[in-house]
Amino acid sequence: MEEYCVIAKERARRPTDFIRAREQRVSKECPFCPGNEEMTPRAVAVYRDDGVFADGETRIRGWWARCIPNMYPAMVQAPDAPTGEWVAMPARGGHEVIIESPEHESSPATFDQETISRMVKVYAERYRYHMQRGSAYVSIFKNWGREAGASLSHTHTQLIALPLVPPQMMRELSAISSMPACPYCNIVEREARSERLIFTKGDWACIAPFYSQTPYEMWLLPFKHISNLLELDESMLEDLGIALKGALHRLSALLNDPPYNYMIFQMRSGYHLNIRIQPAVTKIAGFEKNTGIHINPVPPEQAASELRSVS
Amino acid sequence: MEEYCVIAKERARRPTDFIRAREQRVSKECPFCPGNEEMTPRAVAVYRDDGVFADGETRIRGWWARCIPNMYPAMVQAPDAPTGEWVAMPARGGHEVIIESPEHESSPATFDQETISRMVKVYAERYRYHMQRGSAYVSIFKNWGREAGASLSHTHTQLIALPLVPPQMMRELSAISSMPACPYCNIVEREARSERLIFTKGDWACIAPFYSQTPYEMWLLPFKHISNLLELDESMLEDLGIALKGALHRLSALLNDPPYNYMIFQMRSGYHLNIRIQPAVTKIAGFEKNTGIHINPVPPEQAASELRSVS
Repeated sequence: MEEYCVIAKERARRPTDFIRAREQRVSKECPFCPGNEEMTPRAVAVYRDDGVFADGETRIRGWWARCIPNMYPAMVQAPDAPTGEWVAMPARGGHEVIIESPEHESSPATFDQETISRMVKVYAERYRYHMQRGSAYVSIFKNWGREAGASLSHTHTQLIALPLVPPQMMRELSAISSMPACPYCNIVEREARSERLIFTKGDWACIAPFYSQTPYEMWLLPFKHISNLLELDESMLEDLGIALKGALHRLSALLNDPPYNYMIFQMRSGYHLNIRIQPAVTKIAGFEKNTGIHINPVPPEQAASELRSVS
Repeated sequence: MEEYCVIAKERARRPTDFIRAREQRVSKECPFCPGNEEMTPRAVAVYRDDGVFADGETRIRGWWARCIPNMYPAMVQAPDAPTGEWVAMPARGGHEVIIESPEHESSPATFDQETISRMVKVYAERYRYHMQRGSAYVSIFKNWGREAGASLSHTHTQLIALPLVPPQMMRELSAISSMPACPYCNIVEREARSERLIFTKGDWACIAPFYSQTPYEMWLLPFKHISNLLELDESMLEDLGIALKGALHRLSALLNDPPYNYMIFQMRSGYHLNIRIQPAVTKIAGFEKNTGIHINPVPPEQAASELRSVS
């Protein structure tokens, strides 16, 4: 797989350069907070200790997580795509918001063990739901902080189910299938023994990827060749939660809770699951848009060393 | 070429939603302003009415445009790339800043006829210089406004010369060569007769591309199949300046001088030159990073109609 990024030490900065003033996160009228459930569309899945429910006429209370349709969906339930038209197709699929916790002032970096563990299970369940309904690709991602694209401050994750596999993923799949062995298997094996390792947790490694597009980018990779969240057993799912929280905690501590995106890269089959965390502390500007190559002022070895040093 | 973007009318907003407070653009100690030439590295090309010069011990004054090395270069003059290492190579090339005008409070949207015309000629000359020195790809782009990645407010363009053709461009070239006819020739021919046409100027068309990644994205395309700026004759270069100014003026008037990037897509041969203008008014967030697909709340037909209506 031929991809490049520019590691520009000449542009290097210290972690403090990426620290921004913390955003105001409290809102009295937060639609994601308990008690304000009527402010959102009806939930498609409400998680409580006594089971999973869908909202009826009134909204269900007492939840620990809640999935609602996005009010400004990028994908909608639509009739079958028309054939014969090569350029336009309906944006068929789903667009959900997963509110992982009723706590307004919390985030995966600070979740307790039970909340983070439940969160990754909800991810797996909603992934299963949309794949079983026939989606070709399900994108699960978190935008944290306004600079990273979050329009509401209450912690939430988004899920967009697509009627096709994005070309970017098709290219990766095709590159993988043309290679003698899975490149991610090689990466996790090699990087776990390199200076770019940040930590391991059970069957997971957290690394600063050699091909780091942003400062302090982190990848979570399973050592096992696993295509998606549904192939994880209970113990690996549990460890994923712990590893994700650990990675986000280090990032938050080092850069004072920076804006970031994380994305779950997974496929129905033939892939190697990986989760990428990218702090939104550099701009995607003209050069990146022209070439697809990112300029990153912090070498991954330096990022890994600083992230390792966070206790 | 299989690429997708999501046109999400459900997320549609009015032009006023993308309008931001105008940035403070005046700086007493602007290193790009006349009189402050000593604040920059020595210029590699100083354009005056009496010729083109390079700075010596002291800096040359009285210029109408000036090219200086970027102080934080993403690419540098480096020795030959080592062989045998498949993952790391020196960032060999050049990184220049082109100051297109001594006027602090100006931009290509407001340049007079002579300044815009000179600007595109300087682009062509610096492109020629780096291609002749053996660069494989030369990226010329403008970041306007802090949100678009500009760190200094005095109008300037950047040029990054690369030792390789970016994979993104390689994919395009390979897709083009596999097609019976140039897709850009088809696009400019078809779109100039569509509701996505914004205007034409001589041999140029300005369109809102069907595949618009951002609100109010504009493409400038020559009707002729031309690979790069060096293949343009005097009259087409002149018209390109007028067309670029016209496009930026419309954007600036409609969205009150928004941040934007423009990028010149060109290759040594086998390509169809095009210039893409993307307002930086939406975020590239988790979904885009996961899938490579952009969500755009403004359909290109609406964008074209509004941009056409600017006098």
